[in-house]
Amino acid sequence: MPPTQTASPDGRYDVLAAACPTRQVINRIGDRWSLLVLYALESGTLRFQELRRAVDGVSQKMLTQTLRALERDGLVRREIFASVPPHVEYSITPLGRGLSGHIVAIREWAYANITDIEAARERFDARP
Amino acid sequence: MPPTQTASPDGRYDVLAAACPTRQVINRIGDRWSLLVLYALESGTLRFQELRRAVDGVSQKMLTQTLRALERDGLVRREIFASVPPHVEYSITPLGRGLSGHIVAIREWAYANITDIEAARERFDARP
Repeated sequence: MPPTQTASPDGRYDVLAAACPTRQVINRIGDRWSLLVLYALESGTLRFQELRRAVDGVSQKMLTQTLRALERDGLVRREIFASVPPHVEYSITPLGRGLSGHIVAIREWAYANITDIEAARERFDARP
Repeated sequence: MPPTQTASPDGRYDVLAAACPTRQVINRIGDRWSLLVLYALESGTLRFQELRRAVDGVSQKMLTQTLRALERDGLVRREIFASVPPHVEYSITPLGRGLSGHIVAIREWAYANITDIEAARERFDARP
């Protein structure tokens, strides 16, 4: 078969290899809620309930799991403030900022191409 | 709450809105197998079995479903050749090519930052 050329230049990493640590990163990005949370945080810090309202349709449990995974990967920072009542704020870390630029590019691509994508779906669904 | 500023400039689309058609695009990208199939096809046309070998760990059923969804969205082209035995080839369409550039940027980001991500995970897991 032709080479897939997906490995890193030094050959150490390949996202297509199930055991490669970078594959876990792609698993994280390849998760709709992770993407949507990063979109919501792109423009600034949000509290948990603000995030929950921003990411239409996310459950409390799923949002908690997603934030925890993003925090574990160092992409999102969680800060607890000892106010009354105490509150928790989430923001994108400098590490996550590098990723979110690429993720925003995908959103812009979706906005620019949604008409073509919907036309493709209609053609596909109309096939005999 | 502060604005999330995720809407398209003309205000027609917002990936964070559950009913927005662009949200479906993000649901497609936010799927690890879609990403991995696009990575595998980035360097050229592949047959089904070549794809299955390239995308380590994908099942025949999941690969079939993923390719069908990518074809429906107009991102991947499926061509049947009347050889003996007949075979089927998959390639990225011009529409999908625009997306795959951004997806490749994410892979490059993952290769460049995997050490920081793994360090963040270790710090997270070591917390009391």
